[in-house]
Amino acid sequence: MSDTGSSFGERSLALHREHRGKLGIQVKVGLESRDDLSLAYTPGVAAVSEHLAAHPEAAMAMSFKGNSVAIVSDGSAVLGLGNIGPYGALPVMEGKAALFKEFAGIDGVPIVLGTQKPEEIIATVKAIAPTFGGINLEDIAAPQCFAIERALQAIGIPVFHDDQHGTAIVVLAALLNACKLTGKEPDDLTVVLNGAGAAGTSIAKLLRCIGQDPTVCIPVKEILMCDSQGIISRGRFDKLNDEKRALLSFTNRSDRSGSLRDALVGADVFIGVSVANLLTAADIRLMNAAPIVFALANPDPEILPDEARLGGASVVCTGRSDFPNQVNNVLAFPGIFRGALDAGASRITEHMKISAAHALSACLSDPRVDMVIPDPLDRSVVPIVAAAVAQAWEEDVAAGSHLWHS
Amino acid sequence: MSDTGSSFGERSLALHREHRGKLGIQVKVGLESRDDLSLAYTPGVAAVSEHLAAHPEAAMAMSFKGNSVAIVSDGSAVLGLGNIGPYGALPVMEGKAALFKEFAGIDGVPIVLGTQKPEEIIATVKAIAPTFGGINLEDIAAPQCFAIERALQAIGIPVFHDDQHGTAIVVLAALLNACKLTGKEPDDLTVVLNGAGAAGTSIAKLLRCIGQDPTVCIPVKEILMCDSQGIISRGRFDKLNDEKRALLSFTNRSDRSGSLRDALVGADVFIGVSVANLLTAADIRLMNAAPIVFALANPDPEILPDEARLGGASVVCTGRSDFPNQVNNVLAFPGIFRGALDAGASRITEHMKISAAHALSACLSDPRVDMVIPDPLDRSVVPIVAAAVAQAWEEDVAAGSHLWHS
Repeated sequence: MSDTGSSFGERSLALHREHRGKLGIQVKVGLESRDDLSLAYTPGVAAVSEHLAAHPEAAMAMSFKGNSVAIVSDGSAVLGLGNIGPYGALPVMEGKAALFKEFAGIDGVPIVLGTQKPEEIIATVKAIAPTFGGINLEDIAAPQCFAIERALQAIGIPVFHDDQHGTAIVVLAALLNACKLTGKEPDDLTVVLNGAGAAGTSIAKLLRCIGQDPTVCIPVKEILMCDSQGIISRGRFDKLNDEKRALLSFTNRSDRSGSLRDALVGADVFIGVSVANLLTAADIRLMNAAPIVFALANPDPEILPDEARLGGASVVCTGRSDFPNQVNNVLAFPGIFRGALDAGASRITEHMKISAAHALSACLSDPRVDMVIPDPLDRSVVPIVAAAVAQAWEEDVAAGSHLWHS
Repeated sequence: MSDTGSSFGERSLALHREHRGKLGIQVKVGLESRDDLSLAYTPGVAAVSEHLAAHPEAAMAMSFKGNSVAIVSDGSAVLGLGNIGPYGALPVMEGKAALFKEFAGIDGVPIVLGTQKPEEIIATVKAIAPTFGGINLEDIAAPQCFAIERALQAIGIPVFHDDQHGTAIVVLAALLNACKLTGKEPDDLTVVLNGAGAAGTSIAKLLRCIGQDPTVCIPVKEILMCDSQGIISRGRFDKLNDEKRALLSFTNRSDRSGSLRDALVGADVFIGVSVANLLTAADIRLMNAAPIVFALANPDPEILPDEARLGGASVVCTGRSDFPNQVNNVLAFPGIFRGALDAGASRITEHMKISAAHALSACLSDPRVDMVIPDPLDRSVVPIVAAAVAQAWEEDVAAGSHLWHS
């Protein structure tokens, strides 16, 4: 880990040139003899085609659909690089597919799009959906990402925008453990959430359901969402977009206004999904005792861990692998889709996300301030998260709540 | 090969259940350590993303795009099963992908569509095109397949409707060898082509360029296209669809009309891409001396080889693996796409198709009446066809004819 970022870049360029990307197709059946061909292709395959035409639901058990997820991006918000288009997005989607395979045995197919119009993205995903068991939307900019994901909820297979919910699930898991360590009660928390884009919005929604029992939704006491203009408040209503207006239905119930710094006064938790170097130790000192700080901007966090601790932070998480407590989506999306595919779920419910967060949190029997979340390379996580997600779907089906919109 | 078709069907169903289809994703790079992850994914991948955003043409050398082909079907004309929809089509597209990998090392991705509207199919393929190095359209019904393929010719990557051109290329290759064996001159041939759908139309177009030198287009003397109503003739103009009207610009120059049997009188070649059991030995006797018979209906040909020979046929081809001279698309599409990808071609020109047919024909140094076309399992074919296709593209670019429409 002595490499600098730029050395990783040079080596990554060489690696991608050497292998022509990172993915290939693997054939799981023999094709050596005429007999092999007659089973995998004509004439034998006709029996399978007729069976699936008559029984489309059997495609999950007998075709590529059963274990595959399309990783769809329009390249409009790639990593921290912004709107770099489909070719820039492709290596990231390939990386995501590699993680799907490595961690969950799922066959992820990168699909990068030549359009950034929401209605065309929606139509394209609907058109290709029969091929796949799930759709992972990725690196699509806010606010379009919200409408796109909403429009795709009823297509019959799970659709999950990882930039929103993957981060949110890992944050919730880490926060549950951080509360245990600091003795804070979830329903007594005041949370300042800086960044009202894809991740921030989903985090805010999941914070409505933070009781230690995932079947009972207990919200945190207060969420103060901030954007570049400060606290999102009723006073700014006329100038807010629809997505931010909707946030006011459950955030800022104390009707505060002002700057990010104003918001921090009396807060228990700071969650930043925003930009680098926003805060100093002095800002952390504005918070309540035993502050919990999630500084998730990448690659440079809102505040470095040492500086946050200097301000009194009890628990610090970042998005970086070179600090403890890395909030990394790979702890969520492989298990989420593994569980959804295993259960034959037709969508991802809020209950499935919350159950995933609780399961992830419980992977650590003995959380410590420098380990409130499992290591991203911990192979024990996916089966635990997947089982919780599958169980949540079954509970939702039993309760008849599996088709509710959030 | 003692299996019956139904036994193949049962075994194929079991095979597809056992493996959950035939394909998976293979990860070509290591993902064991943090260092591996930092190269395949963040932070290293950012350098690759920035490079490809600035230089999209480098995606062919550094990403999944460089070696991948989407195999796209709307399920409207699957095998001989008809319009069985996307789930019925999926096992066939997976089989095609398996052949792409096995014969040409190409990563084929099945994409089955939830729409059969041409404009939606066109929009979907355009939207996903940045992901792939080529598009293989498959099992899309005529006449929509023609307009769909035409609309996609200018998207910057090769688009090839295999049901049209794959069959046509193999037929042309076999016909070149059959002419050698029977002493017939290509430019003196009268060809009866029964079936004016996807394959028949493309075969007719390729028969415009049948000289032994692929760089000089010499047409056969006459092509009589027949459909279920008999010879396609000027007298039927008002009742023909646009695609069949266009065929009259270069077929039936002698302005004949009548039935299929009428057409056979004085013909040198019969090519059937139609339905089973149409002809008897007596019909073959209507043809000129040394008739060449391609009875390609599947699984049951227009006439069985023994019956055709009873009528005097010198060379008989079918689509079946249990008779000699199997016309099988696998002799064409892997080499076509391998050559196109290797050359970085932006489309498949007529010259590339014709060059593929000549190269395939020349794979047999010593053709015989029971071997006018290589065995479909012959591994020596793909590199030879691919090299000819790549060379044809380079010649087209040098001549400035690579963007011509056919």
